[in-house]
Amino acid sequence: MSKVVFGVDLGGTTVKMGYFTPEGEVVEKWEIVTRKEDAGKHILPDICKSIQEKMAEKSIAKEDVIGVGIGVPGPVDGDGVIYKAANLGWGVFSIKNQMEELLGGIKVEAGNDANVAALGEMWRGGGKGHKNMVAVTLGTGVGGGIIIDGKILTGSTGAGGEIGHIHVEDAETEVCGCGNCGCLEQYTSATGVVRLTNRRLAKDDMASVLREGEISAKTVFDAVKAGDKLACEVATQFGEYLGKGLAAVACVVNPEVFVIGGGVSKAGTVLLDYIKDHYTKHVFHGSRTAQFALATLGNDAGIFGAAKLVLGE
Amino acid sequence: MSKVVFGVDLGGTTVKMGYFTPEGEVVEKWEIVTRKEDAGKHILPDICKSIQEKMAEKSIAKEDVIGVGIGVPGPVDGDGVIYKAANLGWGVFSIKNQMEELLGGIKVEAGNDANVAALGEMWRGGGKGHKNMVAVTLGTGVGGGIIIDGKILTGSTGAGGEIGHIHVEDAETEVCGCGNCGCLEQYTSATGVVRLTNRRLAKDDMASVLREGEISAKTVFDAVKAGDKLACEVATQFGEYLGKGLAAVACVVNPEVFVIGGGVSKAGTVLLDYIKDHYTKHVFHGSRTAQFALATLGNDAGIFGAAKLVLGE
Repeated sequence: MSKVVFGVDLGGTTVKMGYFTPEGEVVEKWEIVTRKEDAGKHILPDICKSIQEKMAEKSIAKEDVIGVGIGVPGPVDGDGVIYKAANLGWGVFSIKNQMEELLGGIKVEAGNDANVAALGEMWRGGGKGHKNMVAVTLGTGVGGGIIIDGKILTGSTGAGGEIGHIHVEDAETEVCGCGNCGCLEQYTSATGVVRLTNRRLAKDDMASVLREGEISAKTVFDAVKAGDKLACEVATQFGEYLGKGLAAVACVVNPEVFVIGGGVSKAGTVLLDYIKDHYTKHVFHGSRTAQFALATLGNDAGIFGAAKLVLGE
Repeated sequence: MSKVVFGVDLGGTTVKMGYFTPEGEVVEKWEIVTRKEDAGKHILPDICKSIQEKMAEKSIAKEDVIGVGIGVPGPVDGDGVIYKAANLGWGVFSIKNQMEELLGGIKVEAGNDANVAALGEMWRGGGKGHKNMVAVTLGTGVGGGIIIDGKILTGSTGAGGEIGHIHVEDAETEVCGCGNCGCLEQYTSATGVVRLTNRRLAKDDMASVLREGEISAKTVFDAVKAGDKLACEVATQFGEYLGKGLAAVACVVNPEVFVIGGGVSKAGTVLLDYIKDHYTKHVFHGSRTAQFALATLGNDAGIFGAAKLVLGE
């Protein structure tokens, strides 16, 4: 039997799971429900049981499992200890130790879900071939994952790569979810794009297809592609904020590539054009050659990255 | 004979040199002139000759030299290759290989001077006891050195830690040395503080001791300590820019400590108070516990860090 590695992506409603060859080919993937009751105490046993059932079903011997990687929605340090995951009901404990015990000694590595997804994109996705990468997830919020020399930068308290909270607008009066004002997330998340659009629509009565129907990041970028002038103005503002924020990130870690993912990134390459223009304008010349790519693994980035977490460099 | 390690800090006019015990005690330090003529081709031979003379003088055997570390004013990659140092006349070549040959096989490690100085402050200076640190040098320009898990973050093209060029002011019309507008360096370097002061003085005729005599970062912060109202306004602006910039840095690398050095930092702890206030206001809560400390090694940070570069973690 050849060796395999398991990858687990723990979310608030479902747990995505898969197992892979060491080269990164997915053999099979499946999902289980995240049982959050009783302060989330069933979650890890459920996951370990599911892995053991899969091993039995596929006749995978324990010695053929290189390990199990898991990405979780909260800050995790380099030793696999989580520092609270509010939406799972979890406090502080070692995910690594608990899962290794439940799995009878199989090696486990744990990381923050956004960071782990970044690792997945580096291994088999939009950042393939690079070792210094910044993953940018434009979803409900704006998340980041920083990879330096092939390894996740977790930061001293697990708050590395929280690039959605870089301050980019002094004039902002509305408060971000984090409590500050003027965070990158307020303009470049899915809801941020809607906010920018509503503000622009209210400014004057310029004609736009966006005056009819529901406004979402998708409808805005669809309108951009159709040449809607107001939508293009919104995209320019979006690009200005994100370009400025990512230029700041580049001044710190000087990556080879930015990999843009999350719901907003479904707009496609048009998005990259708007970002690159403003990035180039604001970035230090030493980082001007950084590339921009779209994430390619979608919702599977987490299980890929979790598997890679175990495999190491 | 006990083991020693050499540290070299190559500057545009002088080369600072020293040798150390592996524990980081300096045994002796000295300087030689930087001979920049002939495209800087004498510089490394001069340095190696000086090291060999010191070894002869002190009867240090080759096998007792753990290695030689060197910090140079330009981007250096992880393999010791420099990518141009304009003010030395240097192009692209391996400093490590050339020096190892000149020194008959003694191990050499090379790094960027700002990064190497940061490593020195982590080892024996203001960042002692920490492994995740950002060094901020407020001198003629604003430089940075990022240390992650005890190692220098060089970045993919050696432009990691160029935090002086984070964009912090949209309204700026004057151009920074880098060609962009609104860089952190334009407000928080020694010349930046003078610019802020001159702008404030020109705004109205508020009384200030700064209206008489020469304006420098030193006279401004001396006036702050004496309670001069206008000077305090300038310090607040300085703190606002630097706090905002460092909050962005924290959103990326989440350090344990910021170590503030360079000429401007001679103002002392009053400086940290102005920075911390604004840092706390803008930073993501996960990075709010970061500490602020002053650099303590002064001009010796480079030779300490160069030595540490060879010793590793």
